[in-house]
Amino acid sequence: MPNPTAAMLVIGDEILSGRTREGNMHYLAGELTKAGIDLREARVVPDDADAIERAVRTLSGAHDWLFTSGGIGPTHDDITADCVARALGRPIDVREDALARLQAHYDRMGTELNEARLRMARIPEGATLIDNPVSAAPGFTLENVHVMAGVPAIFEAMVASVLPQLTGGAPLLSQSLRIERGEGDIAGPLADLADRYPDLSFGSYPYQKDGAFGSNVVVRGTDGARVEAAMAELAAMFGT
Amino acid sequence: MPNPTAAMLVIGDEILSGRTREGNMHYLAGELTKAGIDLREARVVPDDADAIERAVRTLSGAHDWLFTSGGIGPTHDDITADCVARALGRPIDVREDALARLQAHYDRMGTELNEARLRMARIPEGATLIDNPVSAAPGFTLENVHVMAGVPAIFEAMVASVLPQLTGGAPLLSQSLRIERGEGDIAGPLADLADRYPDLSFGSYPYQKDGAFGSNVVVRGTDGARVEAAMAELAAMFGT
Repeated sequence: MPNPTAAMLVIGDEILSGRTREGNMHYLAGELTKAGIDLREARVVPDDADAIERAVRTLSGAHDWLFTSGGIGPTHDDITADCVARALGRPIDVREDALARLQAHYDRMGTELNEARLRMARIPEGATLIDNPVSAAPGFTLENVHVMAGVPAIFEAMVASVLPQLTGGAPLLSQSLRIERGEGDIAGPLADLADRYPDLSFGSYPYQKDGAFGSNVVVRGTDGARVEAAMAELAAMFGT
Repeated sequence: MPNPTAAMLVIGDEILSGRTREGNMHYLAGELTKAGIDLREARVVPDDADAIERAVRTLSGAHDWLFTSGGIGPTHDDITADCVARALGRPIDVREDALARLQAHYDRMGTELNEARLRMARIPEGATLIDNPVSAAPGFTLENVHVMAGVPAIFEAMVASVLPQLTGGAPLLSQSLRIERGEGDIAGPLADLADRYPDLSFGSYPYQKDGAFGSNVVVRGTDGARVEAAMAELAAMFGT
């Protein structure tokens, strides 16, 4: 049986103007190759509704999977979700499950979930959410299209949740914990924990908020009980 | 008047498999932006004749300029020149002017211009050669398509020769000198020379051959007499 095929669509004026260097194609290409999926084409288009819709329709029609990167943030030029919905003929609106994730995240951060941020809860009907362990705003899978963030740390986390489901591997479960200490403070105990749970993967994503450093720690694995156990130890260690 | 538009086509299995990180898009995007040309789309396709031809036809038809990167070397999977010729309906064969450049280069290097390397002299009828100051094998411009090497140092040198001609600037003249000394030995005198010719640009491209280091120095400018004068000084300094 030939390998399944995939395409990538990178969305963003900042790549085509030369302001930002594209940073996700190389990672996705490597991960797909490891997973036995052939990446056959990649395209970069600007924040232009017609260009995005046309590319989504063409590439999702020509390949088994399409992965998109970029354009799902809170600003007016973040139009990827709406374009994907139109390309696949689905209605789109603020969805309760996405809204709940954002609300919980911004409550924890003590930040207002304003009109602009609400935009990130716009999810097409019938789509499955993709977890965002860094900044909560979810990606989504609609039909054969996986819509993911452009920020490399988030893109990579999203690819890690999506890929096992495509290749017949066991679904990857993930839980995250926000720890109000810098990465340097938690690195030692975290490494010990990772040693004792070699079947799980541990990721740490630093953030800075009001001048204080903190870390979002993500624990991933296929065995839910093991992920729960590691999370319980983590919470006990860092007392949150 | 709106800016002219451009597209980029990156050709190479090694990018889509994740073996090599794409390295030319960011550079081209920045140079086009500085030159007032809008890069509207970029695509990456594998070393597949149908995929390359289709992309060349689509992108050259939709934009004022198309820039390609990759697939013009000596191996069997370097099929860009033949695909561009077919896409634009031109015959292609080994061309005398391209052959002469390769012959001179390999004679200087004491290397045989074998059957495989002859492949790099295949140029479509009616195309204009693009100078390759590093390894001689030329790129070419056919209609609105600029076909360039994938190796970043060569790609960048080719963009530097092509761009001024597209934007109505004076054509950039270039001459190069092969110097059998390492870059560290020539850097000082070269910097002095560059100071005295602020209207010219000086590039140095290192090479290694049979364990010895050498440098190809490229002098570029719009005033032919100035380029000649700088080249004469350079030759006197390094006695070749």
